[in-house]
Amino acid sequence: MALKLHGLPLSTCTGRVLTIFHEKSLDFELVPVNLPAGEHKQPAFLAKNPFGQIPVLEDGDLTLFESRAITAYVAEKFKDTGADLIRHNNLKEAALVKVWTEAESQNFNPAISAIVFQHLVAPIYGMTPDQAVIDANLEKLAKVLDVYEAKLSSTKYLAGDFYSLADLNHLPYTHYFMKTPWASLVNERSHVKAWWEDISSRPAFKKVAEAMTMGQK
Amino acid sequence: MALKLHGLPLSTCTGRVLTIFHEKSLDFELVPVNLPAGEHKQPAFLAKNPFGQIPVLEDGDLTLFESRAITAYVAEKFKDTGADLIRHNNLKEAALVKVWTEAESQNFNPAISAIVFQHLVAPIYGMTPDQAVIDANLEKLAKVLDVYEAKLSSTKYLAGDFYSLADLNHLPYTHYFMKTPWASLVNERSHVKAWWEDISSRPAFKKVAEAMTMGQK
Repeated sequence: MALKLHGLPLSTCTGRVLTIFHEKSLDFELVPVNLPAGEHKQPAFLAKNPFGQIPVLEDGDLTLFESRAITAYVAEKFKDTGADLIRHNNLKEAALVKVWTEAESQNFNPAISAIVFQHLVAPIYGMTPDQAVIDANLEKLAKVLDVYEAKLSSTKYLAGDFYSLADLNHLPYTHYFMKTPWASLVNERSHVKAWWEDISSRPAFKKVAEAMTMGQK
Repeated sequence: MALKLHGLPLSTCTGRVLTIFHEKSLDFELVPVNLPAGEHKQPAFLAKNPFGQIPVLEDGDLTLFESRAITAYVAEKFKDTGADLIRHNNLKEAALVKVWTEAESQNFNPAISAIVFQHLVAPIYGMTPDQAVIDANLEKLAKVLDVYEAKLSSTKYLAGDFYSLADLNHLPYTHYFMKTPWASLVNERSHVKAWWEDISSRPAFKKVAEAMTMGQK
């Protein structure tokens, strides 16, 4: 039975899961969720994810939510297919993948997601972007990217000299961030820029990025 | 060589790691970090964690940061010692542990950590708690706890009828939250209350909680 993903191709968190599907060359069915109609807050969807958020993965009788949990599950279940994203045969490298996956989740994501929300999502819902929120988070993001610049000057990818789940999880928000007026935060840091160009040009993500068109005229 | 943890016993994120050390009955050395003196922002500490945060684990020549990455590493490395916190022999249960570990990280923690910071930490640094921030996060936390109440009415713990890393990661912040005037958010939800009383009375956490005295007169 094919994997069934409930979500939207332009959503960042759906995109995170679609990227790993392509990295692993998996068959899947994408079931669109009608967010404008509030489908994600209706009982049928809440039975799948009580937090009422996309994406949700159905794999047989197993129902999973939270995109980072889903990518970790797929990386584990299909560890011998395609790129080994969790270094499952090396406890030390696997630990460093965990560290930088958490760095994305706890340090990078709160800042970049706030900026992308204000700049790209808020206008879609008729809200005015809050520049004070953007400015505060640009300052936080710059500090995180300073740490990344130093790390990426010693290893090619975040967890070491291998592409991993830690890098993959950064892709969707950075894709949208590079369409904002503040893309220079990435471009002016040479190692971060080279890393971004490398990971975003992987065929698996290029397929996903094509459909991530939020904010495009 | 014993595990070496750099941190402070009253810190929530240090407490998360200490709890799993006790669950696994591991030998460790706790190296205090002088936060008031800014030791965590000095080069020697930044070489261990470039984000300048506690805790940091040194396990031989491996240096790890981010408390949730450390607990996941310890749970994996010592999977056959003490409680199996990641259900490593059952892909489906392991996936549900990942889901609820992410629920803590993405939904529960942002709300509860903001409340605990404003109420308990800000006064230590001479700041006045921001009641608007507290109120907004109490509202978010209540919604998360509604989801937990429903889940915990069908399974004893978050990921299923087994204690796991997902439950463990909730302990330190909830410990401090229960000392705030808003502990009723937990106590008025009978399944959440029973879950909290169960997980917080485990011997491993009771040892850690004794030293989590922030805000006590």
